[in-house]
Amino acid sequence: MSNIVYLNGDFVAAADAKVSVLDRGFVFGDGVYEVIPIYSGHLFRLNYHLKRLNDSLNGVRIENPLSTSGWAEVLTTLIDNNGGGDQSLYLQVTRGVAPRDHRFPQNTPPTIFAMSNPMSEPSAELKAGIRAILVEDIRWKLCNIKAIALLPNILLRQQAVDAQATEALMYRDGLLTEGSASNLFVIKDGIIVTPPKSNLLLPGITRDLVVELCDNHQIHCEQREISVKELENADEVWVTSSTKEIVPVIEIDDIKVGSGIPGPVWKRLITLYRDYKNQFRAGNVQ
Amino acid sequence: MSNIVYLNGDFVAAADAKVSVLDRGFVFGDGVYEVIPIYSGHLFRLNYHLKRLNDSLNGVRIENPLSTSGWAEVLTTLIDNNGGGDQSLYLQVTRGVAPRDHRFPQNTPPTIFAMSNPMSEPSAELKAGIRAILVEDIRWKLCNIKAIALLPNILLRQQAVDAQATEALMYRDGLLTEGSASNLFVIKDGIIVTPPKSNLLLPGITRDLVVELCDNHQIHCEQREISVKELENADEVWVTSSTKEIVPVIEIDDIKVGSGIPGPVWKRLITLYRDYKNQFRAGNVQ
Repeated sequence: MSNIVYLNGDFVAAADAKVSVLDRGFVFGDGVYEVIPIYSGHLFRLNYHLKRLNDSLNGVRIENPLSTSGWAEVLTTLIDNNGGGDQSLYLQVTRGVAPRDHRFPQNTPPTIFAMSNPMSEPSAELKAGIRAILVEDIRWKLCNIKAIALLPNILLRQQAVDAQATEALMYRDGLLTEGSASNLFVIKDGIIVTPPKSNLLLPGITRDLVVELCDNHQIHCEQREISVKELENADEVWVTSSTKEIVPVIEIDDIKVGSGIPGPVWKRLITLYRDYKNQFRAGNVQ
Repeated sequence: MSNIVYLNGDFVAAADAKVSVLDRGFVFGDGVYEVIPIYSGHLFRLNYHLKRLNDSLNGVRIENPLSTSGWAEVLTTLIDNNGGGDQSLYLQVTRGVAPRDHRFPQNTPPTIFAMSNPMSEPSAELKAGIRAILVEDIRWKLCNIKAIALLPNILLRQQAVDAQATEALMYRDGLLTEGSASNLFVIKDGIIVTPPKSNLLLPGITRDLVVELCDNHQIHCEQREISVKELENADEVWVTSSTKEIVPVIEIDDIKVGSGIPGPVWKRLITLYRDYKNQFRAGNVQ
């Protein structure tokens, strides 16, 4: 079955989906995106993702081209076209096609692109824990915007891959920010800590769900600044993302985290997370 | 006459030039670019631009898809297709088309795109001087790479436009870096100063030519760090770029620079610059 994508109002085969070389996404990285997991054909935490999309669009001053119900309709049709079930949905909005000029173009419709691909449960590697590297955060200062201009993230991620690791954890001015495509949690003596939201990290939907699950189950979770030093003494370290869920980091720069295997606090949280997912599949939560 | 562009080996009408939505330029801003002025049908300072292109490609670890002579042939053919004369040439190389994944794809040919458009002499506004705003440099820490991921630059430039200004001058940690699409010069008591090359600013071809012209004509020019404070006391401020040449900044944040008109040092340098251009048109220099 050929994969179908959405592009500016049309559902077309992925191979036929093309944009002008003058699209500001292509020449400037001038756009924002979201990745939304689909479980049993339904968009997980859709309203949270659409809220963040709207925040990102505001951040780069692109008018949101669709209403919440408009987005839901487009995305649901796309999912159905691609066979429902469990998928990973990607959507992107750019400032559209215009002669190349840094200044915003006038009266130019944004480009809207969305695709969805089959998603399986996180792999054995993710369950067994991953290796990470620790690197300086070289990104811009508006990382709260989910911008497509991801070149810094890509270079850092590839640096991790080259070191036989999976993720690059970043710090700025001695404080941990997040992973190249994930949020970061550090666990010590049973207490879960994650950096507070700011312009220096993405307000992750999975991050927020972990905090919410902690709240709902009386698990001690703090949102506060974390020094690089604290990483060295951590019992557990996790990274979270919408498609990878909660992933234990078992080694950082060739040094074991805690005992070097996924820890008990992670086991508790991933169980709560999977339970929540099952509730979602059953239609009991959004 | 329809404008012709170059895309992956073909010369096609601009309106027909399209790339896949999975091009890493479109989804990641994963590419680099150059802008080269064409005078009398010839590429100005081509070798310098191709050297910097190669540095940028190395910086993001994309293999240079063409040799120096290969680039020269492609670009010259493009210029000729578009009628020669004075043009502005833009070229871009991305990491190519691949399923969306932060990690570098294997065995994926890069996407090569180039376009050229008529260029006129800098407008009266540029000659009369421009207004600028002073803003914090929010960009990433590898600004020496001429990357297409220009979203920060775009947002700052538009901030300038919204303030009825033309350029945004940036500082980081109290030191001036450059403009959103230009390098910066500050002149005090006849001495020309520009920030030294580092990972925090673009090694501008026009910047270097200005330094070279100063050297050749025994004009005092220093490459050193410049504090924001020095801007307040400057006699003249200029920004330089390949297409805008040397532009006097006559007002910053509504405060006049020096006497608020283009200064004598600028007049000397722009004359030397235009002389150099004329020598180039005559085939005497590269």
